[in-house]
Amino acid sequence: MEELVGKVKVASLKMATLATSEKNLALQKLAELLRKNQKKLLEANQADVAEQQGQLAPTLLQRLGLSAAKLEVLGRGLSDLEKLDDPVGKVTLKRELDSGLWLERITTPIGVIGVIFESRPDAAIQIASLLLKSGNAGILKGGKEAGHTLRAIEQVFAELATACRFLPQDWLAFVSTREDATRLLKFHGQIDLVIPRGSNQLVQSVMSATKIPVLGHADGICPLYVDHNCNLDQALTVIINSKAQYPSACNALETLLVHQTQQASVVSRLKREAPQIQLIDSPESWSVEYGDLRLAVKTVASVDEAIDHINRYGSHHTDGICSANPLAIERFLKQVDSAGVYANCSTRFADGFRYGFGAEVGISTNKTHARGPVGLEGLVIYKYLLQGAGHIVKV
Amino acid sequence: MEELVGKVKVASLKMATLATSEKNLALQKLAELLRKNQKKLLEANQADVAEQQGQLAPTLLQRLGLSAAKLEVLGRGLSDLEKLDDPVGKVTLKRELDSGLWLERITTPIGVIGVIFESRPDAAIQIASLLLKSGNAGILKGGKEAGHTLRAIEQVFAELATACRFLPQDWLAFVSTREDATRLLKFHGQIDLVIPRGSNQLVQSVMSATKIPVLGHADGICPLYVDHNCNLDQALTVIINSKAQYPSACNALETLLVHQTQQASVVSRLKREAPQIQLIDSPESWSVEYGDLRLAVKTVASVDEAIDHINRYGSHHTDGICSANPLAIERFLKQVDSAGVYANCSTRFADGFRYGFGAEVGISTNKTHARGPVGLEGLVIYKYLLQGAGHIVKV
Repeated sequence: MEELVGKVKVASLKMATLATSEKNLALQKLAELLRKNQKKLLEANQADVAEQQGQLAPTLLQRLGLSAAKLEVLGRGLSDLEKLDDPVGKVTLKRELDSGLWLERITTPIGVIGVIFESRPDAAIQIASLLLKSGNAGILKGGKEAGHTLRAIEQVFAELATACRFLPQDWLAFVSTREDATRLLKFHGQIDLVIPRGSNQLVQSVMSATKIPVLGHADGICPLYVDHNCNLDQALTVIINSKAQYPSACNALETLLVHQTQQASVVSRLKREAPQIQLIDSPESWSVEYGDLRLAVKTVASVDEAIDHINRYGSHHTDGICSANPLAIERFLKQVDSAGVYANCSTRFADGFRYGFGAEVGISTNKTHARGPVGLEGLVIYKYLLQGAGHIVKV
Repeated sequence: MEELVGKVKVASLKMATLATSEKNLALQKLAELLRKNQKKLLEANQADVAEQQGQLAPTLLQRLGLSAAKLEVLGRGLSDLEKLDDPVGKVTLKRELDSGLWLERITTPIGVIGVIFESRPDAAIQIASLLLKSGNAGILKGGKEAGHTLRAIEQVFAELATACRFLPQDWLAFVSTREDATRLLKFHGQIDLVIPRGSNQLVQSVMSATKIPVLGHADGICPLYVDHNCNLDQALTVIINSKAQYPSACNALETLLVHQTQQASVVSRLKREAPQIQLIDSPESWSVEYGDLRLAVKTVASVDEAIDHINRYGSHHTDGICSANPLAIERFLKQVDSAGVYANCSTRFADGFRYGFGAEVGISTNKTHARGPVGLEGLVIYKYLLQGAGHIVKV
């Protein structure tokens, strides 16, 4: 593992110097290779799905499955990514410190990124393409449930390396066992960032096992507060969309806080208009991410009580208020300490694509580096260049 | 400790909503209180210095000592800080996602910052003032060698809280024992960032003991490469300044890489022009931060060999090239993976004040969040605000 990490590290230094045109060419080539190898990929995937039938939970099995349609979406993603600005090499500060002494701050790739995911083999390809565009090198660890598929994917990347000689060897390494993952997480200082993609349990176990910065979020406990003064029709629409449009998403609603004056009407209308939503009223439910149609409901006496509840029990992912009172909205937006704070709209908007980033690395609840939906910008850092003509420090 | 951290967390939410004018008023008041309490502070400090006489190494003893002059510098720092832009509340992105649905990204404080330092009690005041300006709450852990001084400083901050009622109680907590520090570092998720200020050993021990993001750098092993084609007079000036102007600084030169064609002249001129510098020629010296007048010297055959050496043995802090060849310079600036990459100037420029940031939190060699000299910007993150009129997600 040490040797592997060392090789990827060396490759990362070369990745950092790739031209935009080279990276875009490689993305094009990758799309071509995915089309060319579609049959192989789907066959390998069918073998995995067949082996896991009855072993894996239905949702995981669904995430494990590839299809021509999923590959088509991936291909379109690659061509969108090609069109995005190169996040590397941007000058974000330029100043003359002294006559002829120029300081520049310029964006650079982060370096070596570890990616750990479960099931979803399409996520492996997507994340690898984001690493490529941002000039990072990576080590990918997939689950053994996707073993055949991952070997086929690894083959595609080997073909990519042959087709694009400018890509440094070892820019993308694949490891597969659980022991590999455990060892990977020890390489603090050599692996610069870890991105886990999968269940909350996976993310939590990665976070607790490493000192490497982790980009992501474990829970998505998103509360929404319905204020005393609000447009009730609008609030109902927002609640139902936030909860029911895609209940297993991390940005789906989990806790409904209702001002006491609105409690009766909101609950009775919800029961009538969205009978599929199952209302739950108990303190144990305030820190639970259901991921299904259960919804915790709590009555509060004021916007301040709602804010306190959210800062205490929420997971600081995405939280909303439905109100017609501009002062209450301002207070809420200012005081809720979360990656996304929303007024009068669905929590389901928390997504890099919807934010217009054109690509999403993940959604972060971190308080440093990157917070909220993270696009390519989350995969770069910067360095300072200083150029002079023999300038020295006097005092 | 859990109770303390919880209280500081609550205070941090209020700190985030302070107005710029309130924060500036508190900085003014703090400067006043430092003047008013100068005698108490100096007496307390003299007691510490007297107790540590003969116990502490001379450099640490020097750092422990306060003086009217140091307090004067601190006071000036506070008034400079007051004039700096508020780093909180800046809109860094604004876009309309859909008709009437507005997304904004706005800078916010990080939250709760743990600060661990040795000796230098002035650093405690300086860091606390940076936390205040950036709307963060903090927990300060000083060394027991500065016990009397720290209690006097704590008293000053208690007076500040009385004078500025708008400051939330518990925005700044003081802890003092080694056990406190150890426990502090376990509060991953509640303490959002740790800033260690002190020796490399302190920084390293903090980094290895916590999962909280740490802002700083352990080593400052800064190499400088003298190219085949260079202005030798200029190179000598830069080398001597980088090494000898303040040898114990983290941005002082530690390794001199010389192109083989320049080796004889550089070494003989260095011996003549800067006899105080002690040249060392052994591979064991390549990863050592001397912090004194010793300088490791290595002959290399090319700019590429120099780049490889630096990426391998340097600490990615600040590295330089002296060259008259624009292509070599470009190659070096592009390929050296460090927080600061310099051409034809002293490594001693790596400093937040010299970069024009007006304040320095520290110098970071991290690959995420903040790299290089970090100003107030390193103490903020952002959140996304989304405001609509009942907008929901369709597909």
